[in-house]
Formats: sequence, structure tokens, C-alpha cells
Amino acid sequence: MNIILLSGGSGRRLWPLSNDIRSKQFIKIFKKEDGTYESMLQRVYRQIRKADTDARIIIATSKTQISAINNQLGDNVGISAEPCRRDTFPAILLATAYLADVMKADPEEPVVVCPVDPYVEDGYFEALKELSCQSAKGGANLVLMGIEPSYPSEKYGYIIPEINAQTEDTGVSYVKTFKEKPDTRTASSYIAQGALWNGGVFAYKLKYVLDKACKLVGYKSYQDLYSRYNTLEKISFDYAVVEKEEKIQVMKFAGSWKDIGTWNTLSESMGENIIGKGIMDDTCSGVNIVNEMDVPVLAMGLKDVIISASPEGILVSDKEQSSYIKPYVDGIVQQVMFAEKSWGSFKVLDVEDGSMTIKVTLNKGHSMNYHNHKYRDEVWVVISGTGRTIVDGMEQNVKTGDVIAMSAGCKHTVIAETELKLVEVQIGTGISVQDKQKFELGWC
Amino acid sequence: MNIILLSGGSGRRLWPLSNDIRSKQFIKIFKKEDGTYESMLQRVYRQIRKADTDARIIIATSKTQISAINNQLGDNVGISAEPCRRDTFPAILLATAYLADVMKADPEEPVVVCPVDPYVEDGYFEALKELSCQSAKGGANLVLMGIEPSYPSEKYGYIIPEINAQTEDTGVSYVKTFKEKPDTRTASSYIAQGALWNGGVFAYKLKYVLDKACKLVGYKSYQDLYSRYNTLEKISFDYAVVEKEEKIQVMKFAGSWKDIGTWNTLSESMGENIIGKGIMDDTCSGVNIVNEMDVPVLAMGLKDVIISASPEGILVSDKEQSSYIKPYVDGIVQQVMFAEKSWGSFKVLDVEDGSMTIKVTLNKGHSMNYHNHKYRDEVWVVISGTGRTIVDGMEQNVKTGDVIAMSAGCKHTVIAETELKLVEVQIGTGISVQDKQKFELGWC
Repeated sequence: MNIILLSGGSGRRLWPLSNDIRSKQFIKIFKKEDGTYESMLQRVYRQIRKADTDARIIIATSKTQISAINNQLGDNVGISAEPCRRDTFPAILLATAYLADVMKADPEEPVVVCPVDPYVEDGYFEALKELSCQSAKGGANLVLMGIEPSYPSEKYGYIIPEINAQTEDTGVSYVKTFKEKPDTRTASSYIAQGALWNGGVFAYKLKYVLDKACKLVGYKSYQDLYSRYNTLEKISFDYAVVEKEEKIQVMKFAGSWKDIGTWNTLSESMGENIIGKGIMDDTCSGVNIVNEMDVPVLAMGLKDVIISASPEGILVSDKEQSSYIKPYVDGIVQQVMFAEKSWGSFKVLDVEDGSMTIKVTLNKGHSMNYHNHKYRDEVWVVISGTGRTIVDGMEQNVKTGDVIAMSAGCKHTVIAETELKLVEVQIGTGISVQDKQKFELGWC
Repeated sequence: MNIILLSGGSGRRLWPLSNDIRSKQFIKIFKKEDGTYESMLQRVYRQIRKADTDARIIIATSKTQISAINNQLGDNVGISAEPCRRDTFPAILLATAYLADVMKADPEEPVVVCPVDPYVEDGYFEALKELSCQSAKGGANLVLMGIEPSYPSEKYGYIIPEINAQTEDTGVSYVKTFKEKPDTRTASSYIAQGALWNGGVFAYKLKYVLDKACKLVGYKSYQDLYSRYNTLEKISFDYAVVEKEEKIQVMKFAGSWKDIGTWNTLSESMGENIIGKGIMDDTCSGVNIVNEMDVPVLAMGLKDVIISASPEGILVSDKEQSSYIKPYVDGIVQQVMFAEKSWGSFKVLDVEDGSMTIKVTLNKGHSMNYHNHKYRDEVWVVISGTGRTIVDGMEQNVKTGDVIAMSAGCKHTVIAETELKLVEVQIGTGISVQDKQKFELGWC
């Protein structure tokens, strides 16, 4: 199976666990059998591999997410990164071209497109394989997955199938029409007609989308497309392709499916009430604590409340009310306080006028870019591990307790031999993530 | 007026704002006219000075609180510090001896004893002056302040006065008897008899307690008492003195008086709903946020809830339920994460196995003790200000950006010329506050 996972969004709805760098799919919140936690991305990736060991997986994403994806899935994962943001048609086209051109998939092969963040059981991925097979049969140019509605939701679009004899046997029928998010009463009438939720999951043969791309944007090759990506029109796949297509089938999926986009739905999927350091008294009910800080949360006498703490801030919300979080979070303007990078992670420990202190964790064998800053000095104190630093070309071995002082302008990097943690004190006026220039290290 | 302020308790009931070092009276939570915040200690001290510019104020406390008191009130405040903890009779006696022996107060002068943490209006301190005058008259050996009850509380002891003609005119009467915390119904019957709350405020002539002390513990002088303080019996003032005394008067105080011992009562006295960085949506009611962290708290859809965050942890509690906090906080075992010292303050930024990172703020003109550590190296990075460091006797000027590395065993201190902030990275195994040896600096 070929599968394109769409990994988008900044996901501020799950603040403070998500921020401008960490979208919701990267939050490690689902307990695995070994007691550690995995993110939605890791869970879905693992589930696909379990359903199909040989699956060709491409993650379609923006440049800003590459570090986090590599951090969570390793360096060998297939990523189709948009050089800039351009809605779903260009993004899906770029990933499709990557599959055909870079990964050399046959244009006759089908591909499944799926968001990266459904919270589903393993059966869902078996259904994706069936979707892929159905597409391969060639009875339609697009085959959608239609999710059997569990209630007349106003949140989803609906797929109205042609009712015909085939449906009962195979769960596959042609699509009569699409309906956008209705009110509850209209949704009920759709469901009575056999309508299904549109979860944004569909399959097509590679050549179908590449042919479309030839006509619509003069597609030649992945490289060509990539190089002029910023000139492409911002247009959704629905608008560019689905709405104009007449031969569409839908395959019913009747298993459990959850779209985890709010704290309320997320808390329903948490296997336990407390993640991280937390204490609840006996009078709490329906309370979830997700605490990424090193100090404890104590909850007393609360009902149906979400408490979440991270280096970004602290949320305390009634569960129902939590779906209205967005405008409040949009009003919070502060720098990113933590992030996972391809080489490890960082966390802001302290911010003052004229200084910032952060903790940097480099994974074993990884290094930062060789870089400098124009407007700030930096001091590193190695608090654990061993490695090598390169400062203005001078290489030196470092270990726990070593101190490296770098003036503004001085080029520097650190290479971790073991996992290596350091406290970095930045000193200067106008400290900013923009104040960074990268350099090549010839031999590195 | 002579006044002894009793400053005790570790006050974990107001966790996370209070910890083993910062008792509740040191939390800066009351907004002043200039927009800054003051603590209960600072508020009471200011109120006494306003009522009586020349008041001789002695703070009776334990050694552990001296730093915080000096930090908040300056170095010139009168402190009678117990060398070890010995209940209220020895503590009040020591402070009384300090007044008589060290501050040379006349034994005929009266002294008022008062807890350091009542939340009261200025009129209360006028009443303390009257209490002092009443004591000076000599009609009784002890004059208590009786607070007019606002409701039949089960939380307080009650003073039952002799009803006599004098009472109406002066508010003063002799005490018939004391009653310990009653149930509500009994409290109501007491109040019907004219009973008053016992707020632990009373006055006596110095010589009265010094005479008692001669008889009970062979009192000779303050120095003598101090040197054998650890041999004194642990006994309360009530038990040692009040219960055995027959000539006691009570003076009624009818003004507003609050005992701020729990989050619930504290929130009633907060002039505003949000202290620190906090956001509430429109559906919150009766919510108080007290946030001492640098990142925001967002509260949504809550009713009658206290949210408080500090480097110690995060409390989210229904207001009523918050009075049951103690056992939960007692169960939280962690090092002290922030403290005010006589020379400034510190805050723990990060704790790892084998390292700890803290931010140290030295007030202008202050310095740490000259000290060393056996089991840890330390690195200082000056993040703002100027000063001098002394490291193994070597003195050097330091400024923003300077780095000082100190190996285990190496003696060190820093003297702040301006306010001086530094990030201190401690590295070693078994980092502990106990690992500290102080040294004299001959010339310092």
C-alpha cells in the first residue's frame, strides 16, 4: 500500500501542549503497552506498519515540521515537505509526485490519502488496505472512505451514496452527492438516507492525479514542481478535483473513529486520568491532568475539568468550554517555550530582559547546525554526557561540567557522542530566533 | 507602644505559594496604592508604623525566617529569633526579655503581643494602642483583645466576659472564663451571652512576664535565656500563664478582622481576581488566579475555583475544598524551589540527576556568605548587573556575560554593586542544601 499522511496545522486548540512548532499530532499522550507514551503521529505510523509491513509511507507536511517528524519517527521516514504553504491540492500533488518520481512507484498503483491524526483501532488500517484495493480495480477515479455516523454531528461533511444492490454486500457504492456541515435535524435526515461522514480519507491511482496535474499546473516532474511550488495557486483538493469528478465511489467504514481536535475529545481517548506529576483528591470526578512540567499539579473538588501544564502555560478548563479555546490562545503572544528538533529538544528555563536560559538535549550521534548569532553571546555548561564542540573551527572534546563561552559572531556547534544535555545562557539585547546564520562544515 | 509580632508556622496550607521556607505571611498578594504587592508581614508592619511612628516592634520568630524578614522589611528591624523551636511561652518570654534587656524598655511599660498575619483595617492598630493603654492602667495582669463575632464560628476559642456596667462605656470587662472551639449551636449560645473571639492578641506589663519567668525558668537576662533556650520546656503561653491568671480583662474590638489561613479566606481578601499572568473567559465566576510563574494561566468555564502556580507546583481547587489541602501537600516531597534570602532570592530553574540550575538575584549592596561545597562544582553566568566575586581569596570585578567556574572545595562569594542576577549551574552527585560550609572573610 502507498499512503500519504497529511500532517498539517499548528493545533493551538490543544494549548499548552501544542504550540506554533508542536502541532497536536506530536503530543505524546497515548500510553503504550510498555508504559511509555506515543504521539498521534507515532501511533498511526506504528498502526500502518502493523497492518502492512511494506507500506510506502509519505508524510506530506510543511518545512517547520520536519524536525519533529524526524525526532519522533527517525531519519529514514519519507517526507514530502512543502517549501511554502499552499492548500491541499498542491500538497497532495507534491507528495504524489514524490511517490512516483522519487520513490519510483508505478503510475498504475493506487495511493491512499489520510490525515495523520485519526484516533482509531487497528481495523481502520485494514479498511485503508481495502480502500487501496478498491481503487486498484479502477471502477472509479476516486474512492472515499465514508465513516458510519455515530450521531447526527454538525461538525462533519456528509457523503450521500447512491443506494444500489451492491452496497449491502461490499460496503461500496457510487457517490450521489456531498453535503457540507448541516444542522442536527438535516444531519438526521441524511443519516436516514444512508449518508456517511467524510473523514477526508480517499484513494486514487497515481496517474489520475498526475494527469490532472499536467492539465491544471503543467506538471513535469517532482523537482520541477518543487522548484516552482511558490507560484502554484492555493486551492483545496476538494475544489480542484473532487467537486469536478463524476466517477467517485465510497466505501463504508463501520469501526470506531475519533477526530481528536479538542481537549474534550482528547480526554475521552486518554487511557488514564493523570499523565505526568499530578494528585487528585477523592472529590474530583471527570478530571484529566496532563502535566509536562517537573512540579506537581494538585486538583481538589473539581468536576469535568481539564488541567494541562507545559512550559508554554497552564490551562484549567471545564471540558465542554474547552472547545472555545482558540481565540484566547491566539491572544497569548510569547516565544515558543519548548520544541522537538531533528537533533533533540530544547526547553526555555528563564527569560529576562537581555538574557534567556534554555536547556538543550542532543540525542546521541546528533549535532546542531554550525551557526552563529550577530547580537548575542552564549555560554554552554554541559550538564551530562560527552561530545565535541567546534567553535570558530577549533574542535574540542567536552564532558559534564565543561564550560564553553562564545562571543557574538563566533561560529559554533556541538556533536553529541552520548546523549548530551547542556544549559545555554544567551546574553544580549534583542534576543531572537531570527538572529541565526547557518554555515557549512566541510567535513561534517 | 511596644509590640511583639508572632511570626511562626510553615504555612503549607497556602501551597504552592508557601513552602517550607516561605510561610504564608511572606506571600506578596495584597495590592498597594502604587500597584505593587505587599505581604501580610509588610502590610501589618506598615499599618503599625502608621498608627504609631515610634512603636518598638519586635518580631518573634525562628532562625529560618530571619532572611525572609530582612528581605521584606530591611536589616534594621527588631528580631527575637528562637535558636530552636519551643512553643509560645518561651518565645514570648524571649522577645519580652529582648525588649527589656536589649532594647532597654522600662519593666513598667506595657507590651502588646499579636500574630503577624491578621488581615485588618487600620482601626485595628488604634485598638492595639488602646489595649496597651488599658494594660498600663494596671487593673489586670493581662488584657486580651476580644473580637466581636460575625458568625457562630467553630474555628475560634471564645472569651466569656463578666457582664458589668463598665462594659457598655469602655468596651472593657473582666474575663469570666475561656471556651475552646465549640460546635455552632454552643457558639451561638456563647454569643448570646456576649462572648468574643479570642484572636490571640493580648497586652501585659513587661515585668509581669519577667516575674513569671523568674519563678518558672529562673530568668536572669536575655543572654542567659538565649544560651540555654534549648533546655526550656515546650509550653504554650495559654497553659503557662493565661490559664493560671485570675486578673484578666478583655477589650472588645468591633472592627473587621480576618484570619487568613486558607485559600478560601485569602481569596476573599484579594482586591482583584487575577494576580500575575492570567486570562479568564466570560463563563468563569468566583475564580481567583494567583500565578507566580512567567507563563500564563488560562481559565475557562470554572466556578468558585482557586488556581495558583509557583515554582513549587500548581493548585487547582474548588474554594470550599481548599481547606482540606494539608494532607495532600504534606505528601508532596520535593526540595524548596524558591526562597527569599536576606541578600536577595533564588529560584530553581531545572533539576536533573547530577545537576541543578538556579537563578540567583542579589540585591544591590548585598552578598552571599563566603562558602564552599564538598560534592559539587558550580558555574556562574552573570546575566545582569555588576559586582565582585571572591574565589579562593582572589577578588575580581564581574559584569553581565562573565563566567566564573568553581570546582568542589573552592570557596566563593559574590558581592552585588548593582542588583545582580546570575544563573548558577550546580554539577555533582548528591546535590543537597546541606553540602555547604561557611567561612569568615576577615575584611568583609
